[in-house]
Amino acid sequence: MNLSQMTKEQLTAFRDENLALYNDFKAKGLCLNMSRGNPCKEQLELSLDMLNVFDDGNFMSSCGTDVRNYGLLDGIPEAKEFFSEMIGVNTDEIIIFGNSSLNAMFWAVQTAFNKGILGNTPWGKLDKVKFLCPVPGYDRHFKITEFFGVEMINIPMTPTGPDMDMIEKLVAEDESIKGIWCVPQYSNPDGISYSDETVKRFASLKTAAKDFRIFWDNAYCIHHLTDSPKCILNILDEAKKAGNENIVYIFGSTSKVTFPGAGVAVMGASKENIDELKKYLGISIISYDKMNQLRHVKFFGTFSNMVEHMKKHKAIIAPKFRLVTEALNKEIAPLGIGSWTDPEGGYFISFNALNGCAKKIVKLCAEAGVTLTGAGATFPYGVDPEDKNIRLAPTYPSMEDLAKAVELFIICVKLASAEKLLAEK
Amino acid sequence: MNLSQMTKEQLTAFRDENLALYNDFKAKGLCLNMSRGNPCKEQLELSLDMLNVFDDGNFMSSCGTDVRNYGLLDGIPEAKEFFSEMIGVNTDEIIIFGNSSLNAMFWAVQTAFNKGILGNTPWGKLDKVKFLCPVPGYDRHFKITEFFGVEMINIPMTPTGPDMDMIEKLVAEDESIKGIWCVPQYSNPDGISYSDETVKRFASLKTAAKDFRIFWDNAYCIHHLTDSPKCILNILDEAKKAGNENIVYIFGSTSKVTFPGAGVAVMGASKENIDELKKYLGISIISYDKMNQLRHVKFFGTFSNMVEHMKKHKAIIAPKFRLVTEALNKEIAPLGIGSWTDPEGGYFISFNALNGCAKKIVKLCAEAGVTLTGAGATFPYGVDPEDKNIRLAPTYPSMEDLAKAVELFIICVKLASAEKLLAEK
Repeated sequence: MNLSQMTKEQLTAFRDENLALYNDFKAKGLCLNMSRGNPCKEQLELSLDMLNVFDDGNFMSSCGTDVRNYGLLDGIPEAKEFFSEMIGVNTDEIIIFGNSSLNAMFWAVQTAFNKGILGNTPWGKLDKVKFLCPVPGYDRHFKITEFFGVEMINIPMTPTGPDMDMIEKLVAEDESIKGIWCVPQYSNPDGISYSDETVKRFASLKTAAKDFRIFWDNAYCIHHLTDSPKCILNILDEAKKAGNENIVYIFGSTSKVTFPGAGVAVMGASKENIDELKKYLGISIISYDKMNQLRHVKFFGTFSNMVEHMKKHKAIIAPKFRLVTEALNKEIAPLGIGSWTDPEGGYFISFNALNGCAKKIVKLCAEAGVTLTGAGATFPYGVDPEDKNIRLAPTYPSMEDLAKAVELFIICVKLASAEKLLAEK
Repeated sequence: MNLSQMTKEQLTAFRDENLALYNDFKAKGLCLNMSRGNPCKEQLELSLDMLNVFDDGNFMSSCGTDVRNYGLLDGIPEAKEFFSEMIGVNTDEIIIFGNSSLNAMFWAVQTAFNKGILGNTPWGKLDKVKFLCPVPGYDRHFKITEFFGVEMINIPMTPTGPDMDMIEKLVAEDESIKGIWCVPQYSNPDGISYSDETVKRFASLKTAAKDFRIFWDNAYCIHHLTDSPKCILNILDEAKKAGNENIVYIFGSTSKVTFPGAGVAVMGASKENIDELKKYLGISIISYDKMNQLRHVKFFGTFSNMVEHMKKHKAIIAPKFRLVTEALNKEIAPLGIGSWTDPEGGYFISFNALNGCAKKIVKLCAEAGVTLTGAGATFPYGVDPEDKNIRLAPTYPSMEDLAKAVELFIICVKLASAEKLLAEK
């Protein structure tokens, strides 16, 4: 029965029943964390052999530089070749960074603030800088722009990507809008992959600002959860076709391919963009960890081997996603107190509760020992205007722990929803 | 015979003789690089066993976190313990970074520009920010402050450290002076270690700016070239005694201990400084490479083992320093056309030519196939007002190559000096 159709008495009984279940749970003293998109131990074990690739004693990059020493600021040649295929750029359109694509994004924004982009005024010298933020989105993106005092404008997501009509209108009118955060494949947290039309519209965006950049965080480009994945269009190719090749900065990493703490991050963009960025890169570092770059290239050999490797990840984590969505289908769907995504890739399930219930649900879970991503985190400034979105990260816990956590989550959703509806009676 | 006492005819003959030698050298088609302080291959081999420390299959940090995964933003506990001894701070006064202390310094300056320090106005919002720069100094320090538009003021070096009278006077008067770059032990390039008095005067510096910071880049704290090294005083301890503990940011790394491309960098400061910086750190990265942190701790075990390890480096590179200074003593000293340091540690020999000759010497060397650090690089904006300082980096070439490079360098010094003196006749 749909919860909204219940009488006050029915609702009260439902609430009390779930409150009792909740208190039972609380007594168990659970301590589980579903807050971040962390791979689980079995996933980490998949890349263990990467640690042995130097047993051959060969530390030379293909250009003759010893990767243990300084040098090769923008990456070793074989890493450029390897990763350019991953993010769909040429080998002169890529920089290989350290272990963190977030760090590369922060650096790129910082560079725009301090030095400007291709001869335009440094953003730090402007009265106002704005970014568009498709919501719900990735909290760490929003924290970067918040750090730099950027005004963030929410853009609603649709099943084909962000609302392009709204974006096209805003960027055409307002020169102070300098960028947009995008996770184009399996978006964080909705799992939405941008349609071909969306990518093409991004690629040919006409912006009032000459230094507008799309921050295209393709974090999940090979992180599929189905057997027949569909990849998004190559944005740099499309931008070139549209004579607009400088509009995009592409980011990617192996954080969820090899080791989250010790992967390799990359950035791709037009040669003109990359050539300018390289000029500034050497101010902040002598070189990134090239041993780790070579470790990755030696371990995988070819890009298609890395894509194969991702199937082993899928085998471990796809059942976890299924566990969550099946439980929600069974327990929440009939009650009409929430909706959620069933993603074909990426790391998250996005749950929308009844308006005004997200914070309550997250708090209830926390008090019973299950940490979720903070409610609101998926919005700029941590403010979800409808207080409804909750990001679920099912990869890290074991199936057994995940089952417990989901059971608790469902109880909390029921409890919070019943209380909300009771309050409205 | 001192070159300045030669007649025009003697000088001409001397010049011609060295020009002939130079042209012979040029014909050899050398290609050697002495521009940067790179360890040589034999030094890199010293840490090879570090790559096997995970053969035990144990990836857990002492706090129970798997170092392969996300987490522990400011470093694993055992790395904090290990490296706090290296830079002389407590375990709650340290952040463990990635592979680059330069990157940590850039980040710290960037944070001061964008967020300010302990409640003071962000440097980016001030009309003018100035830094003191002991000269000659490290070019990459100066590039960071140049990047942020900081006005740099040259401070002469003395045998006991920078001119403290001048520093004390300037910082007491001018609130826009926000920092100073220091390499306190075996300074780059002079190899000068700050005296106890210098460290104490730094520690108790009275500055007009409340947010003045000493950037104490202790890059060579354990990089001794003698058997009885004397370490500088602990600046944070001294600053605490002076009630001035927030005045210093300390940096260090293992770039020249293990692998320059894949070491571990650290920053130390008062708990109040570190606590504030940690708040901002998570904006730019999720966590640094903790596998590499644990690799270092497992490899060395104790700090004293790392100090022992440095003796193996010394055995490889001390003879290279001797080769250079002995050749200079023999060939240049009698001519009175240059002076140089005989450092007890660090990575460089600082050579001062006759005024106006440094650029010429570096150019001559380059044209004959030996790359030196660019003349002027050791000064802010790349401008050596007397055009005399040249930084020699003897560690990377083999003894055989180094001998050739020094032979060429000496010929170039003689040639450039003779031409200068001839032009003045």
